[in-house]
Amino acid sequence: MSTVEIDLENWSCPLPLRDYPRVVLGHGGGGQLSAELIENIFLPAFRNAELLTLADSTVLNVPPGRLAFSTDSYVVNPLFFPGGSIGELAVHGTVNDLAMSGARPLYLSAAFILEEGLEIKLLAAIVERMARAAREANVHIVTGDTKVVEKGKADGCFITTAGIGILPEGPFPAPFRAQPGDIVLVSGTLGDHGMTIMSVREGLDFQTTLETDSAPLYDLVAAMMRVSTEIHVLRDPTRGGAASSLNEIAAASKVGIQLEETAVPVRPQVSAACELLGMDPIYVANEGKLIAIVAPQDAAAVLAVMKAHPLGKNSAKIGQITSQHPGMVVAKTSIGATRILPMQIGEQLPRIC
Amino acid sequence: MSTVEIDLENWSCPLPLRDYPRVVLGHGGGGQLSAELIENIFLPAFRNAELLTLADSTVLNVPPGRLAFSTDSYVVNPLFFPGGSIGELAVHGTVNDLAMSGARPLYLSAAFILEEGLEIKLLAAIVERMARAAREANVHIVTGDTKVVEKGKADGCFITTAGIGILPEGPFPAPFRAQPGDIVLVSGTLGDHGMTIMSVREGLDFQTTLETDSAPLYDLVAAMMRVSTEIHVLRDPTRGGAASSLNEIAAASKVGIQLEETAVPVRPQVSAACELLGMDPIYVANEGKLIAIVAPQDAAAVLAVMKAHPLGKNSAKIGQITSQHPGMVVAKTSIGATRILPMQIGEQLPRIC
Repeated sequence: MSTVEIDLENWSCPLPLRDYPRVVLGHGGGGQLSAELIENIFLPAFRNAELLTLADSTVLNVPPGRLAFSTDSYVVNPLFFPGGSIGELAVHGTVNDLAMSGARPLYLSAAFILEEGLEIKLLAAIVERMARAAREANVHIVTGDTKVVEKGKADGCFITTAGIGILPEGPFPAPFRAQPGDIVLVSGTLGDHGMTIMSVREGLDFQTTLETDSAPLYDLVAAMMRVSTEIHVLRDPTRGGAASSLNEIAAASKVGIQLEETAVPVRPQVSAACELLGMDPIYVANEGKLIAIVAPQDAAAVLAVMKAHPLGKNSAKIGQITSQHPGMVVAKTSIGATRILPMQIGEQLPRIC
Repeated sequence: MSTVEIDLENWSCPLPLRDYPRVVLGHGGGGQLSAELIENIFLPAFRNAELLTLADSTVLNVPPGRLAFSTDSYVVNPLFFPGGSIGELAVHGTVNDLAMSGARPLYLSAAFILEEGLEIKLLAAIVERMARAAREANVHIVTGDTKVVEKGKADGCFITTAGIGILPEGPFPAPFRAQPGDIVLVSGTLGDHGMTIMSVREGLDFQTTLETDSAPLYDLVAAMMRVSTEIHVLRDPTRGGAASSLNEIAAASKVGIQLEETAVPVRPQVSAACELLGMDPIYVANEGKLIAIVAPQDAAAVLAVMKAHPLGKNSAKIGQITSQHPGMVVAKTSIGATRILPMQIGEQLPRIC
């Protein structure tokens, strides 16, 4: 059913892994099998000077300044999907969390919880995609861990990454800094990642034209910060989508947010898939988009920079911050009505990331 | 069967969690239910200034210097056991990895992967124990994440922590720094943690007298570093036990290690449990012990400091580094014979941490 090309057939293990085609409990035991997994799978992919010390912890030279620190676990199902895999998500998700504080991502840790029986080739493919994503995002994966649990006690592969970034002097974007009058910008179409996963799971035809938007956002953020020191809030709308991110910002900043629903960019195929499944793209997860809340005098310049960046081609102004209805997000609909976009209660799409 | 006192009956949730007695998928959805879990379980326990920003990443002021960075996933089964729980392990394991580079642990991240159906009270008890362990270890848990997977796709609760520590100037302990002539010290009895878990699982009587040794080791390391600048290697012998740690050191430093088996401290009940189960305490996991490899002229002073510390009362000199048989660990047995202690191949005790 999947249209994903994993090309496992042509992958070959750099060194033979004692002929284990699948993960066994011993790969998490800290003994010889663990060492072979590290030497044959992790080191060749992640190779960097810091990782090579193989100590309990890795010692890093970090430029002086404030640090940003973030972590996320990734449990996406399925492990591979159009345009990406859990490997890219595990890198992009965490570097983006750092970038949303305005921090330049430097280092990642990577901890794997593997289910006994996972194909070694599948693990290797995930690790190779992580390594490529890390190179593209300019971060080093410098420390890690592998645990193996019995068959049926996990679901293939869970990955937890933590990231360290470095922050320039001065005020940094934070959820509580939105002010009445600020402009709400979005860096592109909403809902692509969530509907991609959903389409693969449901076996919908949309899967042939839908792709995850998973991407590392720091380069875009850096370009934006070069033209404005008044970017008050940055947020990547992952789980719960843009609506949940905006609700969090409205609550943290004690302001109202007014959206123009017709201004929100959504791909036609995402729109169609959402309609079919009874979902609202503004609540669907993204993995390569950001929301920026910017002082009004800087909004045009920031938007222009966003549109000029490959990851921001479809950027748009979608609303503004108001002093009315603090804590609430309201949208003006295409027919001129006003609707409240509440914080989602539970889970629209489980295991989306 | 368990003799652990969890006292869940007297625990009460600071604020009602919408009457959900168990974790549901929505608790990982990034919406209102996720927010309630954070507000009612995580924030009251971990409360600190950094965590309260609730941003995608947390901004930290770190003193200048080199950083140590480490991560581990914890999948121990059962979640509670005599003397501890997955909560203490998730703190101690990671702060100890930092301490083994000589770094002072400062900050932790905590990422939870929860199985749908986990009792909220159980999660709260784990989180309270993590919080207490963090206070005792002088670290702040400053950022986190929660994912929920469907029932049967995980095993109750997995926790991944990553830690940041700060390192003083000068050379730091590392696995490749052992030199012929150095002395091998251990900070106490070996095998306590592993045999505790094993006894609970097997329902052995030893469980009444066995307890995990899980403890944070930085304070002990700091005391040792005050009397010696020639601590060449520090290692906490967790999975695979002291034998695996020593094999890694022998390989990394290209030296031989010679142990006096009779000098290795082992509790009688650990010894008895090992005999019953056909195990060797030198291969069994510890969570509150360290191995130190120290220049000969400093060994006596370091050992004295270790013995004077509450976590090092049973410290002992157990061997020395030699230029013979590089890469190998050999032990002189009680009857004067010599045996090789090879690197363990796979897993002696799965899911010990």
